[in-house]
Amino acid sequence: MKLASVVANGEALYGAIVDEGFVALSRDFPDLPCLRAVIEAGALDQVVVAAAGRAITHTDFTYQPPLPDAARILCVGVNFPDRNAEYKDGTAQPKHMSLFPRFISGFVGHERNLVRPPENHTLDYEGEVVVVIGKAGRRIKPEDAYDHIAALTLCNEGTIRDWVRHAKFNVTQGKNWDNSGAMGPWLVPFHDASQLDDARIITRVNGEVRQDDTLSRMMFPIREEIAYISTFMTLRPGDIIVTGTPTGAGARFDPPKYLQPGDVVEVEVNGIGTLRNGIEDEA
Amino acid sequence: MKLASVVANGEALYGAIVDEGFVALSRDFPDLPCLRAVIEAGALDQVVVAAAGRAITHTDFTYQPPLPDAARILCVGVNFPDRNAEYKDGTAQPKHMSLFPRFISGFVGHERNLVRPPENHTLDYEGEVVVVIGKAGRRIKPEDAYDHIAALTLCNEGTIRDWVRHAKFNVTQGKNWDNSGAMGPWLVPFHDASQLDDARIITRVNGEVRQDDTLSRMMFPIREEIAYISTFMTLRPGDIIVTGTPTGAGARFDPPKYLQPGDVVEVEVNGIGTLRNGIEDEA
Repeated sequence: MKLASVVANGEALYGAIVDEGFVALSRDFPDLPCLRAVIEAGALDQVVVAAAGRAITHTDFTYQPPLPDAARILCVGVNFPDRNAEYKDGTAQPKHMSLFPRFISGFVGHERNLVRPPENHTLDYEGEVVVVIGKAGRRIKPEDAYDHIAALTLCNEGTIRDWVRHAKFNVTQGKNWDNSGAMGPWLVPFHDASQLDDARIITRVNGEVRQDDTLSRMMFPIREEIAYISTFMTLRPGDIIVTGTPTGAGARFDPPKYLQPGDVVEVEVNGIGTLRNGIEDEA
Repeated sequence: MKLASVVANGEALYGAIVDEGFVALSRDFPDLPCLRAVIEAGALDQVVVAAAGRAITHTDFTYQPPLPDAARILCVGVNFPDRNAEYKDGTAQPKHMSLFPRFISGFVGHERNLVRPPENHTLDYEGEVVVVIGKAGRRIKPEDAYDHIAALTLCNEGTIRDWVRHAKFNVTQGKNWDNSGAMGPWLVPFHDASQLDDARIITRVNGEVRQDDTLSRMMFPIREEIAYISTFMTLRPGDIIVTGTPTGAGARFDPPKYLQPGDVVEVEVNGIGTLRNGIEDEA
């Protein structure tokens, strides 16, 4: 089951993706105006049930990020063994994970273009698996962490690489350019550990594989991410964790292979889907 | 004029603070359920006008942060000359400001206690002036920046100091503990450059002055903050910028003077007010 947020005829809707069509379901749930509200109400299963046997309502629609009004997005940095080396700063593997927030304004939906700004052309891709929290918790134990996940999706955690190291600390300004990343295409309800434990991320640029790794190789597995984050903040339904990208971003190459207008980036994970985005220069 | 968000008899309200009382105004604006909605609608002046001559409606109420559902909060780090030295890492003054997001869940309102968690006792204070954006803009010029500010408030940008340097990059996990900081007491509408240009921040712990500096000494003045941030993201009404703290946080002292249960921190700025918070251990 694939649940998406879309805009069709100027209207924001959510519903199911079936083959190449969209089945609008949001009108069935007038008290739940968006997928975030669905997740907060613990009603994802109800929406899934409502989709059964329904006919396609729209073939012409535009994807938005699955939670277009997500309030809290936390990204995990440097979470695959080779990525630590990629920073070339000679430091040992860190004891704790690196975390940074991104605002939803930095993300477009599936099949929308990422925007390269005129100020800097080091737009880079980072393919990642995203977990959406479905059950609140503080100080969640790693062994219980999966119980707190409602759904999965994908992210191209697009970055203006030069601006990541603009300042002394923090990557904020390289990670929050308007429309510099993508999230989607849809939510896949999470019901089985194997959906994460057996997941493999492949990122392609114009068909060429640039990132290819398995979540099992993460330095800080997703169970640990949820445990660590919930130590300092109560996780709530609708919170989003962008779990980390494998080695192979454009900055990795010499010379770097940054994204150019006309490029197409695909982030594919078995069991979730393929998030596809073009690149355009800011108008 | 002081506009506050409060809870009274279990109900979330906004209105004006007059002497020691609260004048509920939110019922006058059924389409604007919170101060964030007021700011987004550009209706702050209407609310101010509605307050004229009104009687106090509540004397028993609890302050919330002025925008209890703020979506985007960006904090400026290391923004006074001596603070750069405070980090004792031997680096020169940075070319760009350091920025980090905080979630609103990290903040309590005026006269509520900051919470010291059991995991770590290096809870520290940082007094700061907060600007609330009232007019959207991208690539705002410094000379136009003040036109985009709707209101001012204060922040104790409370920090679990040890966790700020937990990871390789980013201060996220030291800056986002539940209820570790405070914002308020209220919004003061911004109508004159002198409200910022002549502002002086004083932070006291149990009456002892720990921070005392003027905004005119900022390395990156507020006009530059708005210009820089709006380079990468469109600022929108309701966005919050926590503009930077002077030297004198508890970590500055040898040995450090971290906050203890029973301490009282006051952040005072002329023309805005005094934000006052006690400290308690997590229950």
